[in-house]
Amino acid sequence: MPLSSFLDDYSEGAHPHILDKLCETNLSQQKPYGDDEYSDKAKEHLRDKLQSPDAAIYFVASGTLANIISIANCLRPHEAVISASSGHILVRETGAIEAIGHKIIVVDQENGKLTPKGIQDALHKNAHYPHMAKPRLVYLSNATEVGTLYTRAELTAVSLLCRQRGLLLFVDGARLGAALSAVKNDVTLPDLVRLTDLFWIGGTKVGMLLGEAIVINNKALAEDFSFHIKQRGGLLAKGRILGVQFLEMFRSNLYFELAKHANEMAQLLSSGLTGAGYKLDAETETNQVFAILPNALIAKLQNEFQFYVWEEVPGDKAVVRLVTSWATSKEQVAAFVKRLDG
Amino acid sequence: MPLSSFLDDYSEGAHPHILDKLCETNLSQQKPYGDDEYSDKAKEHLRDKLQSPDAAIYFVASGTLANIISIANCLRPHEAVISASSGHILVRETGAIEAIGHKIIVVDQENGKLTPKGIQDALHKNAHYPHMAKPRLVYLSNATEVGTLYTRAELTAVSLLCRQRGLLLFVDGARLGAALSAVKNDVTLPDLVRLTDLFWIGGTKVGMLLGEAIVINNKALAEDFSFHIKQRGGLLAKGRILGVQFLEMFRSNLYFELAKHANEMAQLLSSGLTGAGYKLDAETETNQVFAILPNALIAKLQNEFQFYVWEEVPGDKAVVRLVTSWATSKEQVAAFVKRLDG
Amino acid sequence: MPLSSFLDDYSEGAHPHILDKLCETNLSQQKPYGDDEYSDKAKEHLRDKLQSPDAAIYFVASGTLANIISIANCLRPHEAVISASSGHILVRETGAIEAIGHKIIVVDQENGKLTPKGIQDALHKNAHYPHMAKPRLVYLSNATEVGTLYTRAELTAVSLLCRQRGLLLFVDGARLGAALSAVKNDVTLPDLVRLTDLFWIGGTKVGMLLGEAIVINNKALAEDFSFHIKQRGGLLAKGRILGVQFLEMFRSNLYFELAKHANEMAQLLSSGLTGAGYKLDAETETNQVFAILPNALIAKLQNEFQFYVWEEVPGDKAVVRLVTSWATSKEQVAAFVKRLDG
Amino acid sequence: MPLSSFLDDYSEGAHPHILDKLCETNLSQQKPYGDDEYSDKAKEHLRDKLQSPDAAIYFVASGTLANIISIANCLRPHEAVISASSGHILVRETGAIEAIGHKIIVVDQENGKLTPKGIQDALHKNAHYPHMAKPRLVYLSNATEVGTLYTRAELTAVSLLCRQRGLLLFVDGARLGAALSAVKNDVTLPDLVRLTDLFWIGGTKVGMLLGEAIVINNKALAEDFSFHIKQRGGLLAKGRILGVQFLEMFRSNLYFELAKHANEMAQLLSSGLTGAGYKLDAETETNQVFAILPNALIAKLQNEFQFYVWEEVPGDKAVVRLVTSWATSKEQVAAFVKRLDG
Repeated sequence: MPLSSFLDDYSEGAHPHILDKLCETNLSQQKPYGDDEYSDKAKEHLRDKLQSPDAAIYFVASGTLANIISIANCLRPHEAVISASSGHILVRETGAIEAIGHKIIVVDQENGKLTPKGIQDALHKNAHYPHMAKPRLVYLSNATEVGTLYTRAELTAVSLLCRQRGLLLFVDGARLGAALSAVKNDVTLPDLVRLTDLFWIGGTKVGMLLGEAIVINNKALAEDFSFHIKQRGGLLAKGRILGVQFLEMFRSNLYFELAKHANEMAQLLSSGLTGAGYKLDAETETNQVFAILPNALIAKLQNEFQFYVWEEVPGDKAVVRLVTSWATSKEQVAAFVKRLDG
Repeated sequence: MPLSSFLDDYSEGAHPHILDKLCETNLSQQKPYGDDEYSDKAKEHLRDKLQSPDAAIYFVASGTLANIISIANCLRPHEAVISASSGHILVRETGAIEAIGHKIIVVDQENGKLTPKGIQDALHKNAHYPHMAKPRLVYLSNATEVGTLYTRAELTAVSLLCRQRGLLLFVDGARLGAALSAVKNDVTLPDLVRLTDLFWIGGTKVGMLLGEAIVINNKALAEDFSFHIKQRGGLLAKGRILGVQFLEMFRSNLYFELAKHANEMAQLLSSGLTGAGYKLDAETETNQVFAILPNALIAKLQNEFQFYVWEEVPGDKAVVRLVTSWATSKEQVAAFVKRLDG
Repeated sequence: MPLSSFLDDYSEGAHPHILDKLCETNLSQQKPYGDDEYSDKAKEHLRDKLQSPDAAIYFVASGTLANIISIANCLRPHEAVISASSGHILVRETGAIEAIGHKIIVVDQENGKLTPKGIQDALHKNAHYPHMAKPRLVYLSNATEVGTLYTRAELTAVSLLCRQRGLLLFVDGARLGAALSAVKNDVTLPDLVRLTDLFWIGGTKVGMLLGEAIVINNKALAEDFSFHIKQRGGLLAKGRILGVQFLEMFRSNLYFELAKHANEMAQLLSSGLTGAGYKLDAETETNQVFAILPNALIAKLQNEFQFYVWEEVPGDKAVVRLVTSWATSKEQVAAFVKRLDG
Repeated sequence: MPLSSFLDDYSEGAHPHILDKLCETNLSQQKPYGDDEYSDKAKEHLRDKLQSPDAAIYFVASGTLANIISIANCLRPHEAVISASSGHILVRETGAIEAIGHKIIVVDQENGKLTPKGIQDALHKNAHYPHMAKPRLVYLSNATEVGTLYTRAELTAVSLLCRQRGLLLFVDGARLGAALSAVKNDVTLPDLVRLTDLFWIGGTKVGMLLGEAIVINNKALAEDFSFHIKQRGGLLAKGRILGVQFLEMFRSNLYFELAKHANEMAQLLSSGLTGAGYKLDAETETNQVFAILPNALIAKLQNEFQFYVWEEVPGDKAVVRLVTSWATSKEQVAAFVKRLDG
């Protein structure tokens, strides 16, 4: 019997409703390359939720493609990206942004987050023109790579600074669902429209087979966007498969419900861990739980469950990371918590 | 009622067996990024069909990504690609290859094909080193962009020249299924293994939702291939969705059956057209039919069918292109042919 | 004794006046990176000659750098260059433009020149958006790579088309001196300011050690230009050495006098050739002479002179190319002509 | 009267012997693009001094070009550079290395230097393949950007680690002359041949008009090097001007004498400063002096001398940087020291 996995939020396929719709629409003949009626309708629903009738929306197949395409569209060759040191583009995308020619200026992170102070320091240290690349775009992830959230106040402060200093603001939303559905969250999709130049809404990690939706709020950035999608290999012949999935996610609130479920399972897991007397290494804000467990217990748990051992801590213990998803069941969590007692 | 479409071979979703397997495997927890068990099994089946136990195989989401990643993997910055003037990378990929830094040296095509003579001329004209980029990789498509086939003898001649002149040979197989399943074809998958350095097997246009399989026969080219997939945005978190589809295609002969069906529908359409007294503009070798019809007839047909009007010809006529697919039914073809009689 | 060379116009160092000035100014302490007083003064003189008080002017070390930097500054990743098939960037710069990510759309040349018709055809054939790179900049060389000239009417027609179609016009002036000093020329520097978005004035081939001056007429293109110079390695620490040379060239009419001398030597050579009964393969418009000589004579001449044998022609003859420069003397030409008689 | 400048080591033109040779050789007709006899002879002399008869040597116009071309030649797209956080390519070249597609992995510096420990940490943190770019080349500068030296033992340790871990070692020698001529130095040119894969010898900052010599010790890296020079705009038509200068530098020991002079002037300045009772902020190892002076004194000195105020320090003082060069005279230093007394 396979181990139950808390490794990540992309271990399963898609939510069954998504598959149903793919089957249901399968034989209708549609225009290729994203000009199908499902993509059109999905964008209408999404614009409603964004409260932004004019937002330009594009669907692409992966998060790295969303980042490559968005940044390729925004920057000239001498312009650089500002990112937290934990930024996905910096540490987990194999130099994808440098491969399209752009320097990433690294800023120390605080709980996975960029701060106005960090951005200002980066601007100050990178002002020896023209011997330095010109900072032009601020990249941040919400939820962050370590599962934390930006508050509306934090995002507003970053956005304000960007506008004062002529910087574009771009948000990587690989786990935007988890962020917007978190208990502590006070950010909305319309906030993101208002505060950023462009951002993307991750589908893959919320319950789609694949697919991320790029939303462009700054009209000047929208004009030739589709060229970049095609040039970087992101234009699917059967764009319908992204359209159908996003349509199912956003014609109702399925997207948010699935994200909320994942967060709730993380809360349940957190409660189980603290209830059993173990400490968390970080507050559980979204769908990632970081807990400190004795190594002996970890070894025992690994007979039944898959998860990452994050780092050793003194006293023969370690931090483990447990990720929940739309597909995580209460039963899985309960089984895990039950084993904590020995 | 929507028009019946002969526009392309990617108007529908996927063959129902593919969808069934996606549904059936949906909830099993799998390793991400292509390390799932379905991808592993799919590659085993494919290696059997290739008769190449050691072939390195990678699945990616689109044909342009397959081309970008393969060429990025093979070339140093000063090395160039040789392509026919009709090559997809040259005329339909928005400068994707140049965007990763490589010149494409253009060779006149004959029926959409490269010839040894054309390649030799290109080598001769591009030998003024170091003032010219160094030809290093020959790119060709089979079936070609105009629906024609390379014979085994033609491919062998190109391959031999490449090896004599230190050139890599790379085959774009967006419609490889159509080629290998054509009546006139004498090329096999093991031939491609033997004759090329790398090639890819198109899934999208044969009946998958998406997915292309890159096969690397030259071991020296395989070592770091996965870095390029990730760097160019081609590594899907849920790589399983490509694995499941290719597994279904190649555990049996589904891939070839679907391609054969498309070719047969094209033959049926051809026979219907010639039977009704109309001329073809080119022999129907795969799943594309080029026919010459009176403009009045074209206008009438367009009330019920979608297809491209390719070019005007004298006598108030035009060439039309009709593409069939795995999903084209005999009924659709019959309905079209019936309308030819007026 | 070394052979007298008609191979090219960069076989010698610099005109003695240039060297004198380098020596004379050598020990003055100057700001680096082009902010020296010689560069400033050189630009003042040049702006006078351009009749363009606001032109942004930058000096770089080589023609390929001038092309790389100018094009990198002008284009976004999905935008392409239109060039004649004889364009230097296309056939003699080792894929430098593709290496910075841009496709070059090739147009058939007429006497080395682009025509409005050729450009229009290229636009027409490259309009299948977003599957094709977007034509955005027209590149042409004056004098052309085969030594011919654009007339003012021809340049005006190209410029007009560019403005109508939203294309930038960029002129490679590696041999602009030869062009502007040709007997048949009717183009002026102010014409180039008026008709192009940017162009460069070649120094190397007219009599400097090295150095090309990029002139930007379109203000929108000037803002961040210096970043590109630095990023591509074109910003010399001792920018003064370019400044001093251009100052010497343009504080008087030395630049034009040297170019005129080279053209006159070519005319003298032409006259000598036709006077001796030999035919030219092309009219001698600038400082390149193409003549048809018997192979036996060529072999004899090669005992004393260096030049390129361009191509064989029937009747045991060949076209030879003879290039003159600021340093070519009447004596050299006379010695060559004398040998024509046997 | 202009201020006497200690701003940098490239405020003047070239050493008079260099100019003499440029004048003397000016009219000889030479092959272009570096195939001239002066370049050939310069390379012979240099190979003698390197004690490396087979070293491949190339001359280019600027340090940034030397870095761009060398790294473009060495790396595939997914491969990254390791650099100290003070590395010139990282902080003063406008993203030039990223612009050709490569990530730079940053390592904390110690006195401007990379250590084996730092490199090992970088390897450890960048091993999550294929989600991270693959470290492949170690870049360091000697002298460093802050004027310090690598000892032979330090370079040997870095070299050994590189070979154990499959990394190339590349040394930026913009100020290699200053390093090799320093009192404390124990590294030789043959050491660099033995310990590195490639390195370059800076000419500009030692007394040439311009020019850097790239030395390739690893034969596998030499084969197609000249393509990269041309592709990046670094191939001068009149390559002779680099050849003549390097010939003059290396046919005798002029290169080392000029560097030694600059270092001696820095020592003289240091002694003057400490003799007058002021503290140095760092030991003076090469031709850069960092001293702590009262702000009032700084203000007074600025009436006669140009230099950079580096950073404020408590007590109404600041660190100033004073750079000497081949052209700095004892009189200039004496005049400066004299003013220290008030």
